[in-house]
Amino acid sequence: MARASKREEIAQAALEQFRTRGFNATGISDITSAAGAPKGSFYNHFASKEASALEALDRYAAGLRFDMLDTAGRPPLERLRAHFEFMGSDTLDSGFVRGCLVGNFGAEVADHSEEIRSAVQRGFRQWASHIERVLAEAQESGAVSASLDVPATALFILSAWEGALIAARADKSSAPVDAFFHTVFGVVLR
Amino acid sequence: MARASKREEIAQAALEQFRTRGFNATGISDITSAAGAPKGSFYNHFASKEASALEALDRYAAGLRFDMLDTAGRPPLERLRAHFEFMGSDTLDSGFVRGCLVGNFGAEVADHSEEIRSAVQRGFRQWASHIERVLAEAQESGAVSASLDVPATALFILSAWEGALIAARADKSSAPVDAFFHTVFGVVLR
Repeated sequence: MARASKREEIAQAALEQFRTRGFNATGISDITSAAGAPKGSFYNHFASKEASALEALDRYAAGLRFDMLDTAGRPPLERLRAHFEFMGSDTLDSGFVRGCLVGNFGAEVADHSEEIRSAVQRGFRQWASHIERVLAEAQESGAVSASLDVPATALFILSAWEGALIAARADKSSAPVDAFFHTVFGVVLR
Repeated sequence: MARASKREEIAQAALEQFRTRGFNATGISDITSAAGAPKGSFYNHFASKEASALEALDRYAAGLRFDMLDTAGRPPLERLRAHFEFMGSDTLDSGFVRGCLVGNFGAEVADHSEEIRSAVQRGFRQWASHIERVLAEAQESGAVSASLDVPATALFILSAWEGALIAARADKSSAPVDAFFHTVFGVVLR
């Protein structure tokens, strides 16, 4: 039991450290220190830093709240907006740091680890497919144009979101995220 | 003379290494090896890895070919499209690696180095202002809607571009970049 709980603490600390520092700047000792565990204990639970990064991505993806996109009851475009407002709140409320782990690993690690690249790809594709379903629903209800290319638009919105978070962190302002909401909901999906 | 030339080689090698490996995974010895210089010589020319990263950003920005955006003669939206086609060719032709140094440093380093964050911010702002001028010209000529919010759209297009490059690297496909061109030129600026 104690061991299972320590694994959980290390896995959670790894997620926090990777989000805060990035992949390469995170040392195993940063993770174990944050978890209050001896450095050597890391390898009782994870084969490598890369293995813990893959689990961190899974944990991060589980927090993406796809249920907010999928649950009927509110109009589809309202759900889509609420989803991104929720996803942006962490970055905007934390002084414009951290951003999205999927995009950060994509920018920093995808070229150098085939396993992480592949996990980021799966994350993007899964996320885009949820956005695609919401857009298809909006299209069926007539809320967006019948001529909208739904798969391309879903992919575009997702990558535009990742770029907006990076630009907001560099600008230390919400202007790029504001421009995302203005253009996606006021122009692309009008 | 020899010394000035060695500085140039080290500065250029630093740009290549940062683009290929990212900031944290690049060691001083990676830079000096690539430049064919002894490791200690780095510090004859740069105070720190951060200082060479700032110069790498300047060198990268000088290659952004803002002249392609500014030079009249072709219709403004054609210039904008040619600019992004040119910017994407390196990533698309190199097997979907490297991406854009401004966005990569934004994702990886902006939270941790105030100097690099501020340089990324200046890079984004300078780039957005060139895009803004092209859009204003397109708006004056009637090529885009008079109701388009030009500053927000310029900022949005730039961050969408950064996200598209990251997603293309993760996906090892041009689909996110194709979706960028489709949506920006077919929907946002139609």
